[in-house]
Amino acid sequence: MVQIDLNCDLGESFGRYKLGLDEQVLPYITSANIACGFHAGDPEVMEHTVDLASENHVALGAHPGFHDLEGFGRRQMQINPQTAEADVRYQVGALQAFSPNHKLHHVKPHGALYNMAAKDYDLASAICKGIYAVDHDLILIGLANSELIHAAKEIGLPYAQEVFADRNYEVDGSLMSRSKPNSVITDEDVAVARVIQMVEDHSLKAYDGTVIEMIPDTVCVHGDGIKAVAFVKKIHQALNNEGIEVKTV
Amino acid sequence: MVQIDLNCDLGESFGRYKLGLDEQVLPYITSANIACGFHAGDPEVMEHTVDLASENHVALGAHPGFHDLEGFGRRQMQINPQTAEADVRYQVGALQAFSPNHKLHHVKPHGALYNMAAKDYDLASAICKGIYAVDHDLILIGLANSELIHAAKEIGLPYAQEVFADRNYEVDGSLMSRSKPNSVITDEDVAVARVIQMVEDHSLKAYDGTVIEMIPDTVCVHGDGIKAVAFVKKIHQALNNEGIEVKTV
Amino acid sequence: MVQIDLNCDLGESFGRYKLGLDEQVLPYITSANIACGFHAGDPEVMEHTVDLASENHVALGAHPGFHDLEGFGRRQMQINPQTAEADVRYQVGALQAFSPNHKLHHVKPHGALYNMAAKDYDLASAICKGIYAVDHDLILIGLANSELIHAAKEIGLPYAQEVFADRNYEVDGSLMSRSKPNSVITDEDVAVARVIQMVEDHSLKAYDGTVIEMIPDTVCVHGDGIKAVAFVKKIHQALNNEGIEVKTV
Amino acid sequence: MVQIDLNCDLGESFGRYKLGLDEQVLPYITSANIACGFHAGDPEVMEHTVDLASENHVALGAHPGFHDLEGFGRRQMQINPQTAEADVRYQVGALQAFSPNHKLHHVKPHGALYNMAAKDYDLASAICKGIYAVDHDLILIGLANSELIHAAKEIGLPYAQEVFADRNYEVDGSLMSRSKPNSVITDEDVAVARVIQMVEDHSLKAYDGTVIEMIPDTVCVHGDGIKAVAFVKKIHQALNNEGIEVKTV
Repeated sequence: MVQIDLNCDLGESFGRYKLGLDEQVLPYITSANIACGFHAGDPEVMEHTVDLASENHVALGAHPGFHDLEGFGRRQMQINPQTAEADVRYQVGALQAFSPNHKLHHVKPHGALYNMAAKDYDLASAICKGIYAVDHDLILIGLANSELIHAAKEIGLPYAQEVFADRNYEVDGSLMSRSKPNSVITDEDVAVARVIQMVEDHSLKAYDGTVIEMIPDTVCVHGDGIKAVAFVKKIHQALNNEGIEVKTV
Repeated sequence: MVQIDLNCDLGESFGRYKLGLDEQVLPYITSANIACGFHAGDPEVMEHTVDLASENHVALGAHPGFHDLEGFGRRQMQINPQTAEADVRYQVGALQAFSPNHKLHHVKPHGALYNMAAKDYDLASAICKGIYAVDHDLILIGLANSELIHAAKEIGLPYAQEVFADRNYEVDGSLMSRSKPNSVITDEDVAVARVIQMVEDHSLKAYDGTVIEMIPDTVCVHGDGIKAVAFVKKIHQALNNEGIEVKTV
Repeated sequence: MVQIDLNCDLGESFGRYKLGLDEQVLPYITSANIACGFHAGDPEVMEHTVDLASENHVALGAHPGFHDLEGFGRRQMQINPQTAEADVRYQVGALQAFSPNHKLHHVKPHGALYNMAAKDYDLASAICKGIYAVDHDLILIGLANSELIHAAKEIGLPYAQEVFADRNYEVDGSLMSRSKPNSVITDEDVAVARVIQMVEDHSLKAYDGTVIEMIPDTVCVHGDGIKAVAFVKKIHQALNNEGIEVKTV
Repeated sequence: MVQIDLNCDLGESFGRYKLGLDEQVLPYITSANIACGFHAGDPEVMEHTVDLASENHVALGAHPGFHDLEGFGRRQMQINPQTAEADVRYQVGALQAFSPNHKLHHVKPHGALYNMAAKDYDLASAICKGIYAVDHDLILIGLANSELIHAAKEIGLPYAQEVFADRNYEVDGSLMSRSKPNSVITDEDVAVARVIQMVEDHSLKAYDGTVIEMIPDTVCVHGDGIKAVAFVKKIHQALNNEGIEVKTV
């Protein structure tokens, strides 16, 4: 049976600040990327989110980011690879402390760290080394065909190739920059159809119509609003209708 | 052979800020309490300090504190027990990520968290629960005869009773407040003699001369200056001369 | 014409985190207490909130708090008076940079800092000195009959006595602790009637029915939810109906 | 009489962490760039540094940086211009609160913010707008011939062109990147001679020997070590011997 994983960023609240509809999106996803206190999340939020994801039988993953709460980890920071490795290690270890048997399933870098590492092998390699040092069974979730995947392969870390339902791709399989026209797909039905095509046919039309190979392991979905959650539900049902099993990587 | 442990707070640098003579004090101590990024320390400092302590065959311990870098964790904060439990869990997990086989030896709360928990059973219990949840073999280092020790006993966490060479004690075995006259012992020879008496005889003269029982497992020493390191060396030698083995708890 | 000020905490968002219905509550209040980046708020939020309050002709005030975003400034911290003075000075200066002609109208300490200073003269005095050092025309908003008011009087800082519509008072005019039964008034009509009584008659029934003197300059209202805003609208209308002018202190 | 200003970064301590030999360098400089709590410094350090600089009759300036204490403001961060403007405004206002009559003399951006703005007109313009909004008499200290100077000119902000004694320059008058060979001048006598040549002749040999025009208003010196302070003393004396007045811009 054809399978695909749906992953979502969770546990992004901080102190009195609430963010995300974690309870509502959890029934439809299979992997949770839990913020670790650097760009979002705090120890109590982490504890609560681990419990919530566990109750929903959703795989637990760490979601390390830049130490920049004010920018929500979305601002590029030029940290050197040694710092990146230590920062990832720290955050993964901190989340492990809240998980049953201190075992996590995966790690997905967040925001600007994810985007920078997708294109920068040294940074990607540092992140993968940090993960490997904590637990070499952890699965790296990284942008399909990116330097994150290349680094994981090189280091011997298990990996899952991530795709985005609502984004256009370049002919070489890389993600199209948001700054380019038509980079974002706004028609939900088109987005769903693209996911099904990637999962079933391992192919996708790039922005210019060229058919490219795309072998996704997991699809990134969002839970930061009622509309976002509705889309997750929709994509989940479409996959089920198509006979595709939504299952953790 | 009579034994005693010497423990010291290490890894208190942060970013460009350097603090403590870690390399110089390590040869004379047997347990390192390593800051975990909340009141001091950062991921790279933690990694470096774990390596340094390991090379010196010094036992690795976490030194969790309040999330207050500006106050160095020395300002009392009224956090509720649930927050304290999660904060300790987070910090211990973060340090584990840097230690060989992710195994630590002990945990000693820092500064105001230590002092408040010594007198507040609920806070002490929350800290011990946080430690226990991560690894129930971890040894709690707490003020001798304090609520921290009582909580560890109740929860079933191994513990080590800590004493201070340079401080006077009340008749009930509790630490005399720094705000009281004669609470601090400034004569180094007297301080050394008191440690030897506690270790060998399990007794100590309280501030008023009353002989009280005191069974120390570990003595707190400092490495934050040339004079402090010299005193550690002195106490180490005095213990050796007395035939007392300086050994990890 | 009898007058009263309605003040509300605003600008409590931070980065991606949104908090409070600032736009909705502004039409009904006369003084805005704007967070200054320590317990809530960030520079862009401060700039935006100053603009928003100015457009609504609401008096601009600084709302300095403990440097504890995670605890939203609601956790007691034992900072010494010198630190409190410098922290308040810093925050007031930072907000001034965003206000027209760098002029603010008032300062109201936030959360735990407010509550601790209400009972601790030394802390209250340090806060008032910090305000005075920046601009001695700034009006301190403090709990009626508290040490904050006493300190402002002593230092020569203008002040406004603040009362709470939904809280019961002790016979001595101090605020009843939330931990005591019946400390909070849940009946909105009773709350409104109490405000009118205080404003018109300068009297109030303490928790036990004793009639005490209470001369309020400003009433604290909240904008952190639809229900809270509805109550502000209600109290504003009731005051108008009674012929009481809602006006900045 | 020919004049030149010597400026130095001060007030970089934080909480328990001490950095810099502020007292020792102050007698030899004429402008102090005081950290404002984002990349270094805290409110009490700011207060103390303002007092110290005032006692030494050294001009007071703000030294705003990225909000990144861990990286000491030296890591590039991609913040948008609106954020940069608000962040600078906040920091300048905060320091003003500690200065006599709330008046500062100049503003010099710190570290990565300075370096990025030197090459990025939009960022430079945002910084200058932030300064201008607080006080349009404040002098911007920026890298000679950089976008910071261009932006200040455009906005109508007074400016001072800064040069470095120990760095080589490109033929176009821009600072040579540290990553290039021979970018740093290690011979102190050569460094001193270059400063004198710039001040007296408004000329300088670029890295390849080409003589270029360079009209410096201020020279950056350092106080972060005994050797650094000794060099400041040396350069000060050399300027005096040459009959050049060391004077605030």
